[in-house]
Amino acid sequence: MPSLRQYFLNFIFQISKTKPLRRITPWIVAHMSDILPINRLAETQTLIAFFHPKPAYPFHVLIVPKSDLDSVMAIDSAHTPFLSDCFTTIQKLVKQYNLESSGYRIIVNGGKNQDFPILHFHLVSDEKRKAQDS
Amino acid sequence: MPSLRQYFLNFIFQISKTKPLRRITPWIVAHMSDILPINRLAETQTLIAFFHPKPAYPFHVLIVPKSDLDSVMAIDSAHTPFLSDCFTTIQKLVKQYNLESSGYRIIVNGGKNQDFPILHFHLVSDEKRKAQDS
Repeated sequence: MPSLRQYFLNFIFQISKTKPLRRITPWIVAHMSDILPINRLAETQTLIAFFHPKPAYPFHVLIVPKSDLDSVMAIDSAHTPFLSDCFTTIQKLVKQYNLESSGYRIIVNGGKNQDFPILHFHLVSDEKRKAQDS
Repeated sequence: MPSLRQYFLNFIFQISKTKPLRRITPWIVAHMSDILPINRLAETQTLIAFFHPKPAYPFHVLIVPKSDLDSVMAIDSAHTPFLSDCFTTIQKLVKQYNLESSGYRIIVNGGKNQDFPILHFHLVSDEKRKAQDS
């Protein structure tokens, strides 16, 4: 049964899909990410990473910038620190969850393939992984 | 029937899969990319982009750094200009091939999902696109 936190997260995500309210999620991510009911895996000055609330893969992490970016098309030179953080965060998660041996894939959808109007990177693996000690 | 240039490209790619010779492709990309028999779509100081010689999608572009990087795990702060160029190049190709309307996906494989030991970004779309007049 979905927990209350999942209901809340889905509610925020659903209203963010509507045009007038689409800035709610990036605003929360940027200014008060502590209220997001997510299992935070990593956080930097430019992004947060957390397990997908509705995973499509056994291992499915979302990486979301704190800057308000609609899509890949909105990235400009001001967001270079986000890109750099994003790949550093991916490297940490790959090591932490031992994804080299299971295989992993980074995916970013755009245009009509993007179902949620906020830039997000997926880090996925077909195998379920637990965090490694150390 | 595959053309001679395709045979040559496949030959280079095949030998680069072997450990002793894996540095051949990045070396060629960095120092003499003009000899690569590819349809160059974009080139910057840090990367080249070209149609995949063996496409798995109707639209399938590869983006390869000129720096010698094995995988996502080898990216460090020195490669920030490549990351920046990479997303700028993707934006140009999305506009040039009108991929917003067809939908697109950026994919980077790692660990056992990566079949070729050189970092490469895929830009793919399920619809075949021709470059737009602009």
